[in-house]
Amino acid sequence: MKAKPHTDFVRLRRMHERGDYDPTTIHAILDAAPLCHVGHIIDDRPVVIPTFHWRDGDTVYWHGSAASRMLRANAAGDVVCLTATLLDGFVFARSAFHHSANYRSAMVFGVPRKVTDDAEKLASLKGFTERLSPGRWDGLRPVTAQELKATAVLALTISEASAKTRSGPPGDDAEDVTWPIWGGVLPVHLAAAAPIDDSHVNGAYTPPATPFTSD
Amino acid sequence: MKAKPHTDFVRLRRMHERGDYDPTTIHAILDAAPLCHVGHIIDDRPVVIPTFHWRDGDTVYWHGSAASRMLRANAAGDVVCLTATLLDGFVFARSAFHHSANYRSAMVFGVPRKVTDDAEKLASLKGFTERLSPGRWDGLRPVTAQELKATAVLALTISEASAKTRSGPPGDDAEDVTWPIWGGVLPVHLAAAAPIDDSHVNGAYTPPATPFTSD
Repeated sequence: MKAKPHTDFVRLRRMHERGDYDPTTIHAILDAAPLCHVGHIIDDRPVVIPTFHWRDGDTVYWHGSAASRMLRANAAGDVVCLTATLLDGFVFARSAFHHSANYRSAMVFGVPRKVTDDAEKLASLKGFTERLSPGRWDGLRPVTAQELKATAVLALTISEASAKTRSGPPGDDAEDVTWPIWGGVLPVHLAAAAPIDDSHVNGAYTPPATPFTSD
Repeated sequence: MKAKPHTDFVRLRRMHERGDYDPTTIHAILDAAPLCHVGHIIDDRPVVIPTFHWRDGDTVYWHGSAASRMLRANAAGDVVCLTATLLDGFVFARSAFHHSANYRSAMVFGVPRKVTDDAEKLASLKGFTERLSPGRWDGLRPVTAQELKATAVLALTISEASAKTRSGPPGDDAEDVTWPIWGGVLPVHLAAAAPIDDSHVNGAYTPPATPFTSD
């Protein structure tokens, strides 16, 4: 079951079978992707910036320095486009034309608001840190008032969004399937290497795990 | 040595030490990233789309269906922003404030041109396929005239670009380094799982390797 698009703007024009407007799908992609790319307009140009994001219910958050040009632009009342993409595999067909990628991508449009309430800001930063590594927040040196002030948090309500995904084998033309070359999928995923202690680690501390990697 | 920015627009306003305008750095990031996010303006909104890209000298290419709304918008003579990002690690500090990411990101601005010359288009598609898996092109069923016509290729000359990178350990405040929690970096990279044959594989074909993954 594919949900209906919220608006005509996000409706996929081509490859409809790859489109999905179900909030469950969109939330799952946003949650699985460690980072996103936020597009905004500065001086009549599109500007696309990578940033970490996190989600709480229908709201997606990102943060940065209160002095950042991007964050100030994002808080100016204009529509942004936040796109999070996970590459799941390279799809190798018998023709160049049918080579493809398996992926999950979610695109969210909206006008972000700057989080001005300190309690909401702190709660959202906790959500962010806990997302990077569940259980870490309570062990950290607590956030100071000055740090909170220096951090800008933006919140975007997910009201207009779409997902686009592809999975499965290549879609070779029927007459090509016996062409003498391998066809299939090379699955890919984000993997972690061994944690690197910094020079101050002095004790039997356990390096954090993150849910964004798999073996 | 960090090269000078080409234009004031791409000059980093903050965290100058993370900025780099050297074409060698920018090319290396574009080459290492399998995909990018292209930002363009449609109906006065920023729209950010993930796509594979490839590079030849000072030109970065991407492609899609000739019928695609994105490709038509990209060929309309407007400036686009192409950003390619590689996540290299999660940086765990003793305070939430100094948590960070190690990454490499390249941002290229320009007005793309649609590749109309069939020979250039075919050469660029060969470059793309060879980038996904070196040596594969010559074994594929050759591209047909109809496929070439159905494929739109866009070319963007890298004249205005910047890179932003972070590497190394967390930057904890001096008074925090003895806080009783682990600090350091969890390195991450794109890894491949075992190739999945499609149902037509019938013979001793070798699955392709891709330069985008490491163990």
